[in-house]
Order: sequence, then structure tokens, then C-alpha cells
Amino acid sequence: MAEMDPISTVLGRLPPEITATDPDVVARYLTDFRHFRTGAARAVLRPRSTVEVQAIVTLCAAHGVPLVPQGGNTSYCAAATPSPDGGELVLSLERLNAVRALDAANLSLTAEAGCVLSVLQEAADAAGLMLPLDLGSRQSCQLGGALSTNAGGISVLKYGMARDLVLGLEAVLPDGQLLNVLQPLRKNNTGYDVKQMLLGAEGTLGIITAASLKLARKPAQTVTAFLAVAEIDALTTLLARAQTLTGENITSFEYVSQHSLSLLLAAQPGLRHPLETPAQHYVLMEAQTCSPVLALEEAVGTLLEELMGEGLVSDGTLANGGQQRDQLWYLREHIPEAEVANGGSVKHDVSVPTSALPAFITKASALVDAHGAGGRLSIYGHVGDGNVHFNVVAPVGAEPAVYKPWFEREVSPRIYDLAVAMGGSFGAEYGIGIVKLDLLDRYGDKAKLHMMRALKAALDPANIMNPGKVVRG
Amino acid sequence: MAEMDPISTVLGRLPPEITATDPDVVARYLTDFRHFRTGAARAVLRPRSTVEVQAIVTLCAAHGVPLVPQGGNTSYCAAATPSPDGGELVLSLERLNAVRALDAANLSLTAEAGCVLSVLQEAADAAGLMLPLDLGSRQSCQLGGALSTNAGGISVLKYGMARDLVLGLEAVLPDGQLLNVLQPLRKNNTGYDVKQMLLGAEGTLGIITAASLKLARKPAQTVTAFLAVAEIDALTTLLARAQTLTGENITSFEYVSQHSLSLLLAAQPGLRHPLETPAQHYVLMEAQTCSPVLALEEAVGTLLEELMGEGLVSDGTLANGGQQRDQLWYLREHIPEAEVANGGSVKHDVSVPTSALPAFITKASALVDAHGAGGRLSIYGHVGDGNVHFNVVAPVGAEPAVYKPWFEREVSPRIYDLAVAMGGSFGAEYGIGIVKLDLLDRYGDKAKLHMMRALKAALDPANIMNPGKVVRG
Repeated sequence: MAEMDPISTVLGRLPPEITATDPDVVARYLTDFRHFRTGAARAVLRPRSTVEVQAIVTLCAAHGVPLVPQGGNTSYCAAATPSPDGGELVLSLERLNAVRALDAANLSLTAEAGCVLSVLQEAADAAGLMLPLDLGSRQSCQLGGALSTNAGGISVLKYGMARDLVLGLEAVLPDGQLLNVLQPLRKNNTGYDVKQMLLGAEGTLGIITAASLKLARKPAQTVTAFLAVAEIDALTTLLARAQTLTGENITSFEYVSQHSLSLLLAAQPGLRHPLETPAQHYVLMEAQTCSPVLALEEAVGTLLEELMGEGLVSDGTLANGGQQRDQLWYLREHIPEAEVANGGSVKHDVSVPTSALPAFITKASALVDAHGAGGRLSIYGHVGDGNVHFNVVAPVGAEPAVYKPWFEREVSPRIYDLAVAMGGSFGAEYGIGIVKLDLLDRYGDKAKLHMMRALKAALDPANIMNPGKVVRG
Repeated sequence: MAEMDPISTVLGRLPPEITATDPDVVARYLTDFRHFRTGAARAVLRPRSTVEVQAIVTLCAAHGVPLVPQGGNTSYCAAATPSPDGGELVLSLERLNAVRALDAANLSLTAEAGCVLSVLQEAADAAGLMLPLDLGSRQSCQLGGALSTNAGGISVLKYGMARDLVLGLEAVLPDGQLLNVLQPLRKNNTGYDVKQMLLGAEGTLGIITAASLKLARKPAQTVTAFLAVAEIDALTTLLARAQTLTGENITSFEYVSQHSLSLLLAAQPGLRHPLETPAQHYVLMEAQTCSPVLALEEAVGTLLEELMGEGLVSDGTLANGGQQRDQLWYLREHIPEAEVANGGSVKHDVSVPTSALPAFITKASALVDAHGAGGRLSIYGHVGDGNVHFNVVAPVGAEPAVYKPWFEREVSPRIYDLAVAMGGSFGAEYGIGIVKLDLLDRYGDKAKLHMMRALKAALDPANIMNPGKVVRG
């Protein structure tokens, strides 16, 4: 009798309800969000419970079959796409989508990895609370992916990264063991905080199946402002003044360059410029408080008066919640679409100390002007955290498919060199996946890379968890 | 020629200025803060730079000499005390005490491991900012120890644990390599966040030599209240209402039981009870904001009116900064001294979900009443984080040295069982050291213990970093 190949053996031993092999179904899991890579896989495994995830991992470990965990497939780095050789199975967490518990008095929510972020936001809202993790892909990204990539987003300034919101975790380790440190505790110093190793590991050290998250009290007041800023150097002062006057209640402090706004207004002609006098730089700033009694709007009003009086802000508009707020946020969140409408962009997801951010934007822009062969800048991002999406769109008339790889090869290294030289990072929030392995080799601290290899070898000696991602095999 | 023993070899190759061998000097490093253990060591190494730490670790690794890193020696778990067999060297970080950088616009501070916490607080203050890490031992604990134990303290409710404040880290790994991920960045998703492994590892995976910490804006307003609470069940509601009205600006929410306050007033007869009508339960609550314009005191006033009107709070006093505030905090912070004056306490540093805290206190108190042979309760702590110091002092007339070990053996397991059964932890903020290894064995998740051993073996294969602490050799 012919010996079965390991993948057939694994598939043969799993319940057929959780092994999708129809090529049309499988195809939906094989291409990453940004179309960097199309992989191959004979099946997608869609377990319905943590126990089924354990069964899958145990089988795959026994037979040396590598797994690629996938959530909402919104990675910007192809972190959840299988290799083209077909030697891996995709493990989708989408059916692990229960909200297990919501403890309002403890301000915590326990949910499974496959929950879509917006569903969790709604669950918190229904309990009179708020899940302070929020990103543009909220309608499609899933909790497990958000935690495995330590997602950032638009509320980091006040609430931190995804990692900062995790109280407890449940995960299946590469040998099939179940790690259960799911207790929603704010203080739990009992040995190494091993859950930290799974957060941000992009599925290479195990599979997150559930997590307990911090909730916050629901905002009773939201004040949103769109400000025109004449000089980019003013950003740092602006942020400091805004945080001070509002009592560190600035939830979002998002930069939008005139370049990006123009790109968007051109791509979507139905949109209107929110201000009468355009400027080179804009900030979308949002302040929130759960207090019904503190006079937040008055504080923001005082702030804007001062800033305009001093000439730091040249124009601005205030939205007190509601439709106007949605319109302002629409502008911020649809810049990526405007880039796509122009053939997409070369993205540099860079961070520097906040104090260095204006200088970084100025210097990096000069680099593109000098070496970018007419590439169009699109700069925006979470500058309150020192994180800027420094993107470059192909010149009008140029072929993006030719221009972008050229730019990445010839100019991007200068931008990354600059960020790192200014004390920053080549990767703020998107992660490594397969797309940034070379950058990690180039800029990563040597001892850190050594530790990463040691941790990977210790926890996944057979290299079956998302091999080839984050850390080289 | 006789072969030298490894310790002599190591000592012989280090500069004599950094090797203290005078027994009177060495003796200062051999007993832990709570006098659980007195170890032995032929020398204390006191390097003056990270490079010297690297030299020491490289030498010790080569010769198999274990090191016990020590900061301010304030561990409650004997985590920094060498073993009694004299086979280890103590490595004090006290001379690595430079503040390397303070970037006000980036809200960050970079400092060396040996800096005393209060010195760093003063450095932040001098820059018009605040270091939001604060604990009772601020005058003696050092940064490296606070990070290696993921210290908690009195500002966790608003600012998080020590781990949450760390932006970057520098550490010497067990093979002498220097890990440099010290950049003060709020977003830096570039591979595994390896610094997390050193935070809270109590010196068993490497030696933290420096860190970059988040700073906060300095409070412009501080309102402190001492409240009498008739029913312990009201604590959760109280916290929710206080956080809501103040816009999550409650920095501290500290519980003090009448037992603990009485113990203190008896031990220090000069003190006065802060309220006219005593109650069974008190809360020391502090609200702070950096905003000069938001009406925080008014919000707290509204809160107290409402709470007293509804009978949730029976009495209270407000301090608006200054001397009266110091007096209130004195009461909270000197309870441990009052316990010492009564022969010390059996401490249970327990956490449960905040929602379960009142029930835990009630049930655990009943356990002590039923089984504790007259032991006196002293309950206080950071209940805003679900963390209570559930302590028991020997009965009047009993010999503490006899009573305490008896209680720990016969009654403490019931208290820990209860906390864990209520979804809590046997160790909230003190760590493991050597004192809680048995508890970790008993209550720790099996897969977590497996991961801990794997991580220790991977990063410190020769077991030279603080052996026998946190994870069994």
C-alpha cells in the first residue's frame, strides 16, 4: 500500500466539516490583502472550537505539516498567506467567534479569536462601555489577527496598542498544548508573562484562540476638530497643548498632508474640502471623555482660540459628534483608497520619537523630491504616537507597476535609513510578515534577532507555525 | 599549580574597583527586605557601566558562575538574595545610575537600572512632567528591580503596571550579548517584542541595564478624598461612579479596612483618625488631571454629594493637595509598618476581577474568622485594580514567629484557593522570587510552566542568571 503524504493523512483524520478543500473556497484564503503574494494550499481548516484547534495542531505537529493561521486576512505584510509551494494548510479562526464573557464591573470582555473587531466594539457598546481598539479595517479584521500583529490604529494615543489592552490569553502552542492564562486580571505577576510572546508574533509561536481585553468607559462627550497647520514644526507643540488642556483626553491626533487630501478630493469628486483656506498640513484631532460633567468642549474651544491667536493653527472646524464628525473621519480613513485609485502607493510605516516627527517628514519629503523621479507624496498617520504613513504614489503618467518596485529598491532604503538614524523604526504597526524580513535583517538589533531565533526554536522546534514569517527558518 | 575555583578566577579577572569582597560590605546585600533568607557570597560586583556588566556576565558565563542581580533590595519574595551555599555572586546595579536622556516633547525618559525611583520622579518633575510609576518604596527601590518585577504600586489604575510604561530596553543577555532596543518609541512592531521577556523575569533571563519610560503630563490638579464606606459591596459601584464623573482620572483607589487603620492608630499614637464617624471600610481616592481648565474638584464634589446622598458613602474628607493630602497618604502607606510593629503579617498579595473583589474580601475574612485561631486581619490595597493585600497579623499574645508559619501552612492555602476559584491570582504584584515557587507549581497553568521552562532553557542554558528564582532549575 502506498504511503499517504502527510497532508493527506492530516486531512483524512479531521472531521470533514472543518476541512474545506473545494478550490473555489480555498482560493479565498490564498491572496493577501495587498496582493503581494498568492499562495497555494490543498485545504483550509475551519475549526469551531479551541478543542478542534488543539486537535489540528496536535495532528500537524505529529506529521510535520505547517499551518498558516489566518483571521480577517487584512495583513499589510502578507503575514497570513501560505507559501506558493502548497506545502502548508491554512487555519482560519473565523468560526471561533463567540463573545464568551463581558464583565462590566471589571471593565473586561473575553472573546474568541475569530470575532470581527466591529462586533466586539458593538458588544462593548451594548453594555454601556467601549472597546478602545479601533482601526480602519474594523469591519473585517478579527481579534486574533489584531492581537497577533499587535495592531495599532486610531486610539493608541490614549489607550495604547493592542498588546496594552490584553488582560488574558488562550492559545494553542505548537505542540498542541493549551495555554490558558485567560483570567481578566489587571495585576498578575506570577512568573514570566508568556502571553506577551504570542502577542505580535504573527502566528509563528502558536495560535491565539481567545483573549480577555480591557474595556473603557463609554465617551459621554466627543469633540472632533479638523485643523489647518501652517508650519509642520508646530505639530509637537499642538499635541502638547491639546493634551494639557484636555487632561490627556486626546484620543486621536491624526496628521493629513495636503498631498493626501488633494489625492482623495480628486479621486472622490463628491467630497468637499472641510476648510475654507487650504494649508499644507492638517490635523484631525479628537477629544473624548466619559465624564458628563467636565466641560470638554469648552476646553477644546479654549485650546483652539489660543492656537489660532498665536498663529499655530490657521483655520479649523469643530464637530460635536454626529454626521459632521463622520465626514471628517471619512477624509482620514479613505486616503488609502485614494492611493489605490492612483495605482497604489509604496508605503513606509515609520515611527520616530514624537519630538522628531516634523523634522522626519521634512527631511524624508526632501529625499523624495530629490530622488523620487516625480513620485507624489501621500503622508498621513498617527502622529500623536510618532507613527507616520509616509507613502509615495507613482507620478502622473508613470506605470505604477514599474515605478513602485523601482522606488522601493532605489529610494525606500534612504527613507528607512533616515527614520532609523533619527531614533525611529522601519515598522511601526504593520508588522513583518514576509514583506519586511529583509528590513528586519538590516535594521534589527543583532541580539534581538538572536533572541527571536532562540525563542522560535524553543517554542516551535519543528517550525510548523507560519514558517518563514517574522523570523527566518 | 592548584587550579583556581571558578569564582576566584572571575574575581581575579575583574577590576578590583568593582569587586567588593569586604565581608561587612558584602553582608549588606545578603538578606532580603523581609528577612526570609540570608544568603552567602564571596563578593558583590558593582559595575559602573553597561560595558562592565557585559564583561562580568561574559566571564561568569565562561566559568559557569551564577549571578544574582540586585537593585534596591526591596523584593517581598527574596528575589534578589543569593543562595546560602555561597556559590553565587551578587551583581548590584546601584552604580548604573545615570539619567541618560529626557525628551519632553516625546514624553520619555531614558535611565539606567540603578536609578532610585524617586530620583527619576524628580527628574521628570523638573522637566515639567511626571513619571507615573510610584510605589511605597520609591526612596529605595531602583528602576531595574521595578522593571524586573513588573512593579505595580499606587498609580496602576490610570497608568498601568511598570511593564506598560516601558518604551525601550537595554539588557545584557546570559551569554554577555547586549540587547539594545532602547528607542523611546510608542509603536515599533518589528518582530517579537523580546524586551517583554526581561520585564517581570526577576533577573532570570538577563540583566536590565537601562530603559526608556513613558512620562505623563504633570498634574495641574490633585483632589484626594478619604471616604467611609458602610458596605463593602459598594466598592465596585463607587469606583465606576468615580471614574465616570472624573473622566477616568482616578489615579488611585486604595482600600483601607478598619482593621488596618486601627492597627496603625494603635501603633503610632500621634496619629488621628481622619473622619469623625468610623466605619468598617475606607477608600483613599485620588483624582488628578494635567488640565488647568477642567473643573476636577467640582466633579469630585458632585460625586461625593451623590454618593453621600445615596448612602453609599457615610462620611468623607477632601484634601486639595498639600499637607492634608500627605496626611491621608501617610495612613495608607504606613500600614505595613503597623503590621511590623505587631510582629509582621502573613501577606496574601491577591488579585481577582474587580467585580469579585468585595465578595472575595468577605469570604476570605470569614475563612480567617473560622480557621485563623484569632489572627487579626489587615486588609488594604489597590482595589481599583482588583489587587488586595489580604494580610493576617498574629493574635494579641501569640508568638508571631510561631503563629505565622502555622497560618501559612494551615490557612493560607484556603485563601489562595478561594482567590483562584474566583478567577483570580495568588500573586498580583510582588512576583515569585523563591518564596512563591510552590504556589506557582500549584496554581500555574501547566502549559505556561512548560513555556517558562522552555524560555529559560533557551535563553539561559547554563542557568547562571539568578538560578532557582521564578522557574525551577
